[in-house]
Amino acid sequence: MIRLTRRYRFCASHRLHAPGLSESENRALYGKCNHPFGHGHNYVLDVSVRGPVDPDTGLAVELEALDRLVGRNILEAIDHRNLNAEVEAFREAVPTSENLGLEIYRRLSSGWGSAFPPNRPALEKIRIAETEKNIFEISSHG
Amino acid sequence: MIRLTRRYRFCASHRLHAPGLSESENRALYGKCNHPFGHGHNYVLDVSVRGPVDPDTGLAVELEALDRLVGRNILEAIDHRNLNAEVEAFREAVPTSENLGLEIYRRLSSGWGSAFPPNRPALEKIRIAETEKNIFEISSHG
Amino acid sequence: MIRLTRRYRFCASHRLHAPGLSESENRALYGKCNHPFGHGHNYVLDVSVRGPVDPDTGLAVELEALDRLVGRNILEAIDHRNLNAEVEAFREAVPTSENLGLEIYRRLSSGWGSAFPPNRPALEKIRIAETEKNIFEISSHG
Amino acid sequence: MIRLTRRYRFCASHRLHAPGLSESENRALYGKCNHPFGHGHNYVLDVSVRGPVDPDTGLAVELEALDRLVGRNILEAIDHRNLNAEVEAFREAVPTSENLGLEIYRRLSSGWGSAFPPNRPALEKIRIAETEKNIFEISSHG
Amino acid sequence: MIRLTRRYRFCASHRLHAPGLSESENRALYGKCNHPFGHGHNYVLDVSVRGPVDPDTGLAVELEALDRLVGRNILEAIDHRNLNAEVEAFREAVPTSENLGLEIYRRLSSGWGSAFPPNRPALEKIRIAETEKNIFEISSHG
Amino acid sequence: MIRLTRRYRFCASHRLHAPGLSESENRALYGKCNHPFGHGHNYVLDVSVRGPVDPDTGLAVELEALDRLVGRNILEAIDHRNLNAEVEAFREAVPTSENLGLEIYRRLSSGWGSAFPPNRPALEKIRIAETEKNIFEISSHG
Repeated sequence: MIRLTRRYRFCASHRLHAPGLSESENRALYGKCNHPFGHGHNYVLDVSVRGPVDPDTGLAVELEALDRLVGRNILEAIDHRNLNAEVEAFREAVPTSENLGLEIYRRLSSGWGSAFPPNRPALEKIRIAETEKNIFEISSHG
Repeated sequence: MIRLTRRYRFCASHRLHAPGLSESENRALYGKCNHPFGHGHNYVLDVSVRGPVDPDTGLAVELEALDRLVGRNILEAIDHRNLNAEVEAFREAVPTSENLGLEIYRRLSSGWGSAFPPNRPALEKIRIAETEKNIFEISSHG
Repeated sequence: MIRLTRRYRFCASHRLHAPGLSESENRALYGKCNHPFGHGHNYVLDVSVRGPVDPDTGLAVELEALDRLVGRNILEAIDHRNLNAEVEAFREAVPTSENLGLEIYRRLSSGWGSAFPPNRPALEKIRIAETEKNIFEISSHG
Repeated sequence: MIRLTRRYRFCASHRLHAPGLSESENRALYGKCNHPFGHGHNYVLDVSVRGPVDPDTGLAVELEALDRLVGRNILEAIDHRNLNAEVEAFREAVPTSENLGLEIYRRLSSGWGSAFPPNRPALEKIRIAETEKNIFEISSHG
Repeated sequence: MIRLTRRYRFCASHRLHAPGLSESENRALYGKCNHPFGHGHNYVLDVSVRGPVDPDTGLAVELEALDRLVGRNILEAIDHRNLNAEVEAFREAVPTSENLGLEIYRRLSSGWGSAFPPNRPALEKIRIAETEKNIFEISSHG
Repeated sequence: MIRLTRRYRFCASHRLHAPGLSESENRALYGKCNHPFGHGHNYVLDVSVRGPVDPDTGLAVELEALDRLVGRNILEAIDHRNLNAEVEAFREAVPTSENLGLEIYRRLSSGWGSAFPPNRPALEKIRIAETEKNIFEISSHG
């Protein structure tokens, strides 16, 4: 068994503002991230999968299939987008990197079965870096 | 004489759209950067100054004075901001990194005289990285 | 559940010298790190916490509370300090990065309860890089 | 207990070509990596060990012993080498980074007992980055 | 006037061996880089151009034109290739990074005129990093 | 003509304190860098040389000769050292990175003639990074 991690990059804009809080509570909680017109980041997304190495090909995952899945389910929807205005999941939820990570994990999980042959490889973890100082990880074992 | 470079980071959002071009020309020219709701970046700004080393203190520049100037003239105006909506220079000009670099250079130049003692040190160059793939430099010698 | 990692940086000096060993044993064991007047590093400290995402705010941890705790319990004591001369834990123990990591973990653990609301989030791991070649991790599960 | 990770670098060349597949299947599967004369990479190898901290020395592992083991069992055989032509394990197996990682792990495991005193420290994980986009990990717990 | 630098990556293999020297002189001069079956690197190529910013579009260079030129004249010929066996310039010259840089500069210069409109922008410099320790630059002013 | 840059790393400790200033002036000027017991850094030193490429060997500089010069004249004296206590140049001058850069440049210049054949290559520039935020450059043209 081996773990393979593949790196993707995208950029997006967002504004952090919780609808259930007052203006001043939002400013206190999110600081500069609550500025009314939003800001953005260069996000780094690492997708980790786990599986056995095929003895004939020496590969644990077909990278083209992974790239297609990430391209279609993730990058097309969020790369060079405004998360608040253009991604449906953030009509309700605040587009923090926590919630963005959970949304990316859900989108990968839901497409996994049709992208890969049964049982091989498994989605194990995603890691999203909003800046080099703030990093978020979501894994299959909770 | 020595050159000192100090690194700053900020994030901002923007949309690239030239008012003198048609919708389809804009899409063709700017691609994903023309998406209507904008996107954003983690910018890295390097400010390079040049000057002699003070024999008593061993310093070429008082970093606190440089930080104050960059903080007041640059970061306060553009960090965690939407460049199109919140920075006056981009009412007319398109907020490409070329134009953002020129604007940052002008703002530093205009405040330089009152931030530092006469003739020491000189603003030599700025460098702005929009991503690790695209880097822009503007220097005092054109 | 999500894991959030936040990065801090500090610099410090130290000398590696075990009081129970002879001069020549110390030189053999620690090499250049045993030079009598010490040397120093730019340390990178990553603090990883684990917790659920608050559905109202989209946050897993209040970063200001974490920054305050790290600032008060860690950085104030060791940033720009000589570990041997100024940090009490290293009166007895040798200030290797192993011991520095254990000391940082103890300081974070002991302050955790008063810095955060009960049970949320948990301190999961710290990672300290002395250089990019030598990295040390200490985690809550031993 | 602490985890220590030490970074090594090497460069090598390889060609990906599975003997059981046809020419066109190989081209379809490996793309540019199947070019007939090979290509190469700067690999980054991180070796992670786990053990208690010696209370007298403050160390979890004797780095010189680890460096000797990695040097003799790994770097001497693969640094600045053509993996297909010069490493016996790749007479049969395709020198993908998956298989290279497994081979490195086997070579470290087999030499571990004679390089270190009994039970301390344990080899926990290796991580090999072929580029910053493709990373492979193999750990002791499968 | 502004300088724009765009980053490209490629990997290739090579062997350093000067035909005018004896076997032992080659080994002494090039060390491990003279190993008979070659080795390889992940090269990082930075192309710097210089020009005025178009007041209508805010751009100094059309990146698509630059990418096409680099793709066609450089990457297609050397990415995932064996420099000795597959690049004609290295039938005679030794494929050191010095010579590789000169070859890349010549290929960019020769295609520049047909890739861009007259006089705008100018090729100013290329920078090629063989590893993070060894970096080579060639510029238009010698 | 080509420019070659080679990277070296070292770590050292220092305290910034100007003998001609009072205690409180020193604290105000240097801040945390004036802490009485010192602190330290992982310094990154880039040495840039300039010269023609030898048509027979494809090399612009003999790296072993450069490594020997840097090793003997720079690293042996300052790596894993306390700059204030162990480097003679800092008996008088404050060991700021400005002064450290000037000292390194002087040491390289003074040894250059005996390390390399006449006129080839020339020492062009050194660059010293104290942290990734503060970078210092000294070049042969002042």
